[in-house]
Amino acid sequence: MKGRFITLEGGEGTGKSTQIKLLAEWLNRCGVETVLTKEPGGTPIGRELRQMLCTGDKDKFDAVAEALLYYADRRIHMQQKVLPALADGQWVISDRFADSTMAYQYYGYNKRVPKQMLEQLYAMTVGEFYPDLTIILDLDPRIGLERSLQRNGAAEVKETRHESRGNEFHQNLRRGFLEIAQTSPRYVVVNADQSIEQLHHDIVKIVEERLLKP
Amino acid sequence: MKGRFITLEGGEGTGKSTQIKLLAEWLNRCGVETVLTKEPGGTPIGRELRQMLCTGDKDKFDAVAEALLYYADRRIHMQQKVLPALADGQWVISDRFADSTMAYQYYGYNKRVPKQMLEQLYAMTVGEFYPDLTIILDLDPRIGLERSLQRNGAAEVKETRHESRGNEFHQNLRRGFLEIAQTSPRYVVVNADQSIEQLHHDIVKIVEERLLKP
Repeated sequence: MKGRFITLEGGEGTGKSTQIKLLAEWLNRCGVETVLTKEPGGTPIGRELRQMLCTGDKDKFDAVAEALLYYADRRIHMQQKVLPALADGQWVISDRFADSTMAYQYYGYNKRVPKQMLEQLYAMTVGEFYPDLTIILDLDPRIGLERSLQRNGAAEVKETRHESRGNEFHQNLRRGFLEIAQTSPRYVVVNADQSIEQLHHDIVKIVEERLLKP
Repeated sequence: MKGRFITLEGGEGTGKSTQIKLLAEWLNRCGVETVLTKEPGGTPIGRELRQMLCTGDKDKFDAVAEALLYYADRRIHMQQKVLPALADGQWVISDRFADSTMAYQYYGYNKRVPKQMLEQLYAMTVGEFYPDLTIILDLDPRIGLERSLQRNGAAEVKETRHESRGNEFHQNLRRGFLEIAQTSPRYVVVNADQSIEQLHHDIVKIVEERLLKP
């Protein structure tokens, strides 16, 4: 069986990492081998970039520098982890991918960075390659941010750089993901304002229909 | 007096940092305020990127990832240091700038990365802005690499990632700089195979003629 590439997208605190674990366990029970990964930080160098991107002052560099760093992480991630695993027949499930860069650096900043720039970065870094399925977890950012800040309150390293951007940014971000979802049939939007079990059930149904039905 | 932006370029061990210090001292004696800087690593975040780019295994990521990281460093450097200093009327002298990315990531790797990609990265990161003067220090790489490896032998952090690429890479690099020098009158090539004093004398003459004559 050929490997598949599934990405989960959405704002802060929408439950992506929890749902990825549950989905992988379910796929494993179906006999599918999975690789769980994330952006930024899916590789050793990516983890250094993640710390640079997700911690510290929100204005320590601008959206263009951010986009370049996210794409550097993505290039290394694709070359060293995603593409080799897919070639090996494994299913790769990634917590965030290129849609997050479009949502955060373009929509979040209210289109201050040209969309064409991000499309050029995608073309030079990833080329003519797209996820087989992208699940967007949609949630009111006021709920998501509270969850995320609570989780970070207990964490040793505080990944709150994006959380600190304020409500308007996160509302733009949510609208951005919903606009992106209109651009290709590979996107499915799910309501993330429900129990972990119910959301998992919804996600499993999508994966079954899209990728497992003969 | 309006600030000027001077960049020094060339392979490893061509004497750029020594010549920058001497040039700045000479400009200061002429009453010109200078900011000495370098790429990568002209800012605190840039220093983290420099360590990522210049130390460790030469194949830890590919030329595309490198180009993205160099341009992230460049964006932060421009925004936080170069442009503010120029606006303030100071002369900025940088040990490497975008020509190094073209020479290393395009010519060094024997054109494996499309030139257009590096031009797009320049446009999105720097825009319609160019150094006032770029001095290329030309030297047989066998001499330069020996110098550079000697210097690194004594250093605590070994910045030898590019040095380890072998003779063909460094010969391509040298030819690359000489080709780049043909593309605009802002470039001047100097022979770096001479004494520190003589090379300094040549550089001062160029700066006087190009930027100080009324």
